[in-house]
Amino acid sequence: MTLAYETVSENRSFGGVQGVYRHQSQATGTPMTFAIYMPPAAEHGRVPVLWYLSGLTCTHENAMTKAGAQEWASEYGMAVIFPDTSPRGEGVADDEAYDLGQGAGFYVDATQAPWAPHFRMWHYITHELPELVFGNFALDRDAQGITGHSMGGHGALTIALTMPHVYRSVSAFAPIANPTESDWGRKQLSAYLGEDRAAWAGHDATLLMRERGYPREILIDQGSADQFLHLLKPEALAHAMTERRQPGTFRMQQGYDHSYFFVQTFMGDHMRWHAEQLA
Amino acid sequence: MTLAYETVSENRSFGGVQGVYRHQSQATGTPMTFAIYMPPAAEHGRVPVLWYLSGLTCTHENAMTKAGAQEWASEYGMAVIFPDTSPRGEGVADDEAYDLGQGAGFYVDATQAPWAPHFRMWHYITHELPELVFGNFALDRDAQGITGHSMGGHGALTIALTMPHVYRSVSAFAPIANPTESDWGRKQLSAYLGEDRAAWAGHDATLLMRERGYPREILIDQGSADQFLHLLKPEALAHAMTERRQPGTFRMQQGYDHSYFFVQTFMGDHMRWHAEQLA
Repeated sequence: MTLAYETVSENRSFGGVQGVYRHQSQATGTPMTFAIYMPPAAEHGRVPVLWYLSGLTCTHENAMTKAGAQEWASEYGMAVIFPDTSPRGEGVADDEAYDLGQGAGFYVDATQAPWAPHFRMWHYITHELPELVFGNFALDRDAQGITGHSMGGHGALTIALTMPHVYRSVSAFAPIANPTESDWGRKQLSAYLGEDRAAWAGHDATLLMRERGYPREILIDQGSADQFLHLLKPEALAHAMTERRQPGTFRMQQGYDHSYFFVQTFMGDHMRWHAEQLA
Repeated sequence: MTLAYETVSENRSFGGVQGVYRHQSQATGTPMTFAIYMPPAAEHGRVPVLWYLSGLTCTHENAMTKAGAQEWASEYGMAVIFPDTSPRGEGVADDEAYDLGQGAGFYVDATQAPWAPHFRMWHYITHELPELVFGNFALDRDAQGITGHSMGGHGALTIALTMPHVYRSVSAFAPIANPTESDWGRKQLSAYLGEDRAAWAGHDATLLMRERGYPREILIDQGSADQFLHLLKPEALAHAMTERRQPGTFRMQQGYDHSYFFVQTFMGDHMRWHAEQLA
């Protein structure tokens, strides 16, 4: 089945095409917008793909314009997909806080009112959007990596640790690493999934790392001057990774904060690393 | 004299610092915001500097976040300055059109009402802001290059061709190349400088190229799919450059449009080129 979508914009970039597209999502019951960068190599066959999940308040656009991914995607012959971070629109539940509701889907499938009807970002990212993009773009379904920033780093890690057979490489920039023990997490997991903490365990990278790990190397970058360190809790993830003897690299980058200037600085490293893992 | 300024933000980026600063401008009579990227090399001494002038509707922020300059500035040990494109504020004249007034200073010193009191971007860019930055940052005043996009390409070319002893290298991305013959130019030059076309001649890159040229190589990139080709008039500049035997390179980049995806794609080329010219 080929799912329908419409083109919002296409711009040439580093010899490839940076596209923005919109489709009616069955998962969320809303129109959803996403971006894909297709490198020049895609003219000659299916290419590996990196999923980039964004953080709180972001849309598909922030990383597309600020992360500097296209340069490296072009060089390494990889596509990059930038999904939105939640359903949006007038009929969609929301909250006045920036960190709950629209722009803050946390990559879970909500089971609680008023969120359950639309907030199904886990299913959207892992099932519906893949069906659409693999049916319509020259992407290699057997060469998928995933990364993300902040809330998106949380999404990338929890998704990859749950489905390592699908996501053959994973990295993260300043991920929300232990949301069940943070004010960036407890409020949202409680709202979306209810008070039963057993339902939260599948959405905490530190708990998943302790429980199962990841069968290949992982890469984490964290800025030492990040203004949200107390909410991200990288020390919990570093402890779990080390305790488990998880293969991989955890880098504390001196002086970097939580901004896209941090992401952009290390995007080339991450993309080269994903390209090697997916080769 | 050291002019006063305040720090709006500083973020670590590619080992250097991306800063945003604000000061009270005497040229415009308003507060003005500008950004500077200082590369790691500036920790050890004064570095060459590239002025990046932005296009219509932009502030200091667009190129700072979307052009991808920091990566190359870090690698080549150059600073990059991103000024605003006009004075702003409630007491400053404006127009409903996006291409006149605030966000559209056109890099001239206005002589006509209601623009003359504040719209003095030529003087601001070429005299006041240099005094501030060379007095406060580790920048080499004898190694200045200038570039820009669209209206900023117009600014870069007209400034460099007028003061080639100050700006030792110049390039442009999709510049407004012949504003005295374009709807991106006649309206603004008329509004800011009056109906005497003699006053316009110093603000048209094609006319300056015909009259005096530039004593070193210049570099121009233009996208073939640019939606504003009929307003930019690159053919007039190419004709003038060729007729004069101006040393340099004019590249028509197939399939690229007017967006920052175009600028970002070729920013590395331009920065390497400026670094070589200023070495």
